[in-house]
Amino acid sequence: MDNFEENIIKAGFILPPPPTVAGLYSPAIITGNLVYTSGQLPLKDGKLIEPGGKGKVNEVRKDEAFHASRIALLNALAAIKSVTGSLDNIEKIVKLTLYVSSENFFSSQHLVANGASSLLHEIFGERGVHARSAVGVTELPLNASLELELIVQYKP
Amino acid sequence: MDNFEENIIKAGFILPPPPTVAGLYSPAIITGNLVYTSGQLPLKDGKLIEPGGKGKVNEVRKDEAFHASRIALLNALAAIKSVTGSLDNIEKIVKLTLYVSSENFFSSQHLVANGASSLLHEIFGERGVHARSAVGVTELPLNASLELELIVQYKP
Amino acid sequence: MDNFEENIIKAGFILPPPPTVAGLYSPAIITGNLVYTSGQLPLKDGKLIEPGGKGKVNEVRKDEAFHASRIALLNALAAIKSVTGSLDNIEKIVKLTLYVSSENFFSSQHLVANGASSLLHEIFGERGVHARSAVGVTELPLNASLELELIVQYKP
Repeated sequence: MDNFEENIIKAGFILPPPPTVAGLYSPAIITGNLVYTSGQLPLKDGKLIEPGGKGKVNEVRKDEAFHASRIALLNALAAIKSVTGSLDNIEKIVKLTLYVSSENFFSSQHLVANGASSLLHEIFGERGVHARSAVGVTELPLNASLELELIVQYKP
Repeated sequence: MDNFEENIIKAGFILPPPPTVAGLYSPAIITGNLVYTSGQLPLKDGKLIEPGGKGKVNEVRKDEAFHASRIALLNALAAIKSVTGSLDNIEKIVKLTLYVSSENFFSSQHLVANGASSLLHEIFGERGVHARSAVGVTELPLNASLELELIVQYKP
Repeated sequence: MDNFEENIIKAGFILPPPPTVAGLYSPAIITGNLVYTSGQLPLKDGKLIEPGGKGKVNEVRKDEAFHASRIALLNALAAIKSVTGSLDNIEKIVKLTLYVSSENFFSSQHLVANGASSLLHEIFGERGVHARSAVGVTELPLNASLELELIVQYKP
């Protein structure tokens, strides 16, 4: 039996409560056996985590952002659980998209994304192997350092 | 019976004709019971609307861009209708992605996106509650202020 | 019988070997009858092609980037083949997303994307007509000029 929440704890993290949203949109939406999450920020208890969650990322702040990508990932998983009831019916992580608020000349968005990708592997093992895009953008909501979205396949 | 086009009129708008494209790609594509739109700009009668549809968005131009996101949304809905025949068979808005051409220090892309999200709610009610990502990019085609894409679930 | 790889050769290109990835993620993932690729860079033999594959795109470098978008597309097709076994079971190109690393004032991302879109048409004919988004971003991994991802429908 898979117990993906237990794997989150083994990895040293805790699944947060589902993200709150204004009501016009939802943290996640189910269509068929796919779940699409909204873009998730590196928020913890409603605040961007310090120091990696805020502002533009550059070479110096790369490791902080690596960690922040994991916090945003946990929020995305919490969003999924809020509509599926459990993480244990996730069959496959399909796609991860990471937008990194990037200073000019910072071109290691893929290394930032490895934070989330490696945590997906720790939690979901083979089922966590996903397609991925990582891009560097100008600005993100609330001056966040990054925004992460997932598409996953689950067993309804 | 749903009549989503009537709701567009009640909201003070008119569904435009479907977006024209060069022929190499399509305003929207159906796969199974999902429709993916191409990225839509805030064009009206073939021109970017003034003043909110052009140029980079900043704090001062936020409300103009809020309105522009609704015009881009209407183009996305027109794109969907062009391949499904009607908006009334839309079962669910799955995902909205909004790219906002953003000046440095502008970090309210989510407030711009609320223009489109709230209009989706006016038109589709509960079916309009969607997953959403809003990001700030450097530049967009034709110097547009924003580009919006939708994924919707429909009944074939 | 379709022979899409032959069409690639007729168009003057060769399908490259599948992209190598670090192992945490995959060049492409199958879910149902859809294939999602990871974001692909204009790499050839492991290096960004010169001169169009590197650095920010501007008006002067538009044609170079047009060509680079085709190289990234071929990598995306190789990624798909690596999980489906063949390109010939592709039924439909659903969505192309192109992120172009853009200098300020460069707003012809759609013309860059036409490189990939027109090659899709040469290879897949009517089945190659896709939905598309093209956006201008700040920076991309490895200082690439662009990153391209595909969603395609195939016959399992």
